[in-house]
Amino acid sequence: MQTISDIQTLQQRCLDARAQSQSIAFVPTMGFLHQGHLSLLQEGRKKADLLVLSIFVNPTQFAEGEDLDAYPRDFERDEALAREAGVDLIFYPTAEMMYPDGYASYVSLEGPLTNTLEGASRPTHFRGVTTVVCKLFNIVQPHLSFFGRKDFQQLAVISRMTEDLNLPVQVIGMPIVRESDGLAMSSRNVYLSDSERQQALSLVDSIRRATAMVKQGCADAAKVVDMVRQRLQQESDLSIDYVKLCHGPSLEERAEIDAESVLLLAVRVGKTRLIDNHLLAEDLD
Amino acid sequence: MQTISDIQTLQQRCLDARAQSQSIAFVPTMGFLHQGHLSLLQEGRKKADLLVLSIFVNPTQFAEGEDLDAYPRDFERDEALAREAGVDLIFYPTAEMMYPDGYASYVSLEGPLTNTLEGASRPTHFRGVTTVVCKLFNIVQPHLSFFGRKDFQQLAVISRMTEDLNLPVQVIGMPIVRESDGLAMSSRNVYLSDSERQQALSLVDSIRRATAMVKQGCADAAKVVDMVRQRLQQESDLSIDYVKLCHGPSLEERAEIDAESVLLLAVRVGKTRLIDNHLLAEDLD
Repeated sequence: MQTISDIQTLQQRCLDARAQSQSIAFVPTMGFLHQGHLSLLQEGRKKADLLVLSIFVNPTQFAEGEDLDAYPRDFERDEALAREAGVDLIFYPTAEMMYPDGYASYVSLEGPLTNTLEGASRPTHFRGVTTVVCKLFNIVQPHLSFFGRKDFQQLAVISRMTEDLNLPVQVIGMPIVRESDGLAMSSRNVYLSDSERQQALSLVDSIRRATAMVKQGCADAAKVVDMVRQRLQQESDLSIDYVKLCHGPSLEERAEIDAESVLLLAVRVGKTRLIDNHLLAEDLD
Repeated sequence: MQTISDIQTLQQRCLDARAQSQSIAFVPTMGFLHQGHLSLLQEGRKKADLLVLSIFVNPTQFAEGEDLDAYPRDFERDEALAREAGVDLIFYPTAEMMYPDGYASYVSLEGPLTNTLEGASRPTHFRGVTTVVCKLFNIVQPHLSFFGRKDFQQLAVISRMTEDLNLPVQVIGMPIVRESDGLAMSSRNVYLSDSERQQALSLVDSIRRATAMVKQGCADAAKVVDMVRQRLQQESDLSIDYVKLCHGPSLEERAEIDAESVLLLAVRVGKTRLIDNHLLAEDLD
């Protein structure tokens, strides 16, 4: 395994691999790897000759006042986990390399995919995500790229961007990985106190209840959303950002629940913002 | 030579060529080819194994009320010229293929590169240009791409975008090709009446005079701009959009003329909008 910071070196390495008919799998991350990331790396390892992991806490997807500086980092631990997962190349650039003086170019998406849900409270967030993923795809030249469904909207946005800009990359969404108690894995979970961690379980609990309601025949989105809000409001240190029932591919809100309906949740527990989601037609493991 | 409209077919063809270690030269155009385009194709033919020409009148770079529908088109003539120039593949998609239902993604640049000069009167123009060029680069996967310096700002914008987004493409600017009377070649020149054509020569005449002033030692941008404006204003059917003296790479206006100073002109002659430019340190052929 090799760690490369220089963009040209990494790009040339990947172009050479392609020229030698090697397939490239790519997992872009902001580091502080957990089981969710590792599940993406495991899948990438199975599917391609060269497995590339990027670790880059991307400043353009954080707004002023968000947790860019506080975002958890532990490169040595990440490197060890990557080696274990069979990663061939870690791309580990600095912000100055990715956004040098005079940098001016951004990739953005219009419409509900980026201005609802996460985009409603974080208006420049997805512009940062699509810009950095477009750059990373151009640098790494992957055939396959893996993203967790935990960031459901991010996956939808990146899929759309990849198709729209004709990037020759297959974007693959992978299932949410959960802790044994059901909390969705997130690098931000380390911020939670014991009491907050207990309250955070209301996310997966409300998802379980919603899935059960739908299984029992409820097709009324408003009823399910009400139930979820009430469940979440039982927690003293939890404040709701949004509870929405959307048509998965378009992220449009729909009154009636169908096979493509996704429940999307964003809350703050204490100071920590958590998200979770679930395709309601599927059982929660 | 082969003409391909389907995006996936063309992209796969180019990815296969790359996998076989063929180099790809690319000339993106809106068709209605003239000597300027042919000079780009000739250079491309010399420099690479596979020469790809795209012909696509890109709707996203025209604003409401601009000449999208009236833009001159003659595909059969273009095809014959392309064959003569040694083109291997013509990419000739429709607007529906390039911007299908649900299309949402745009590439744009912030700052003076896109909000001055052409961008001042055409605020969405360069967003359309950078979006389509990014898409075309991803589809054609070229090693080299050729652009005329006639669209000086477009070349500067595309160079910046290519570098910023880490596209593995070398963007090459080629000299302006002029008619025997000095008028810069443009697909829009066909719109000019005989009288308008005569008046349009004031563009190259004023450039000649400006070049001479600078050669004789004038370093005062305001003086040169004044002279050029006065010369252009002698024409009855000509109205000035802008006359600017800018630092070439950044397109910032500067009071003092130096080796990187570029004179940029945009006028309307009758109903036809014409642009021209010249690096003042260079002799006009």
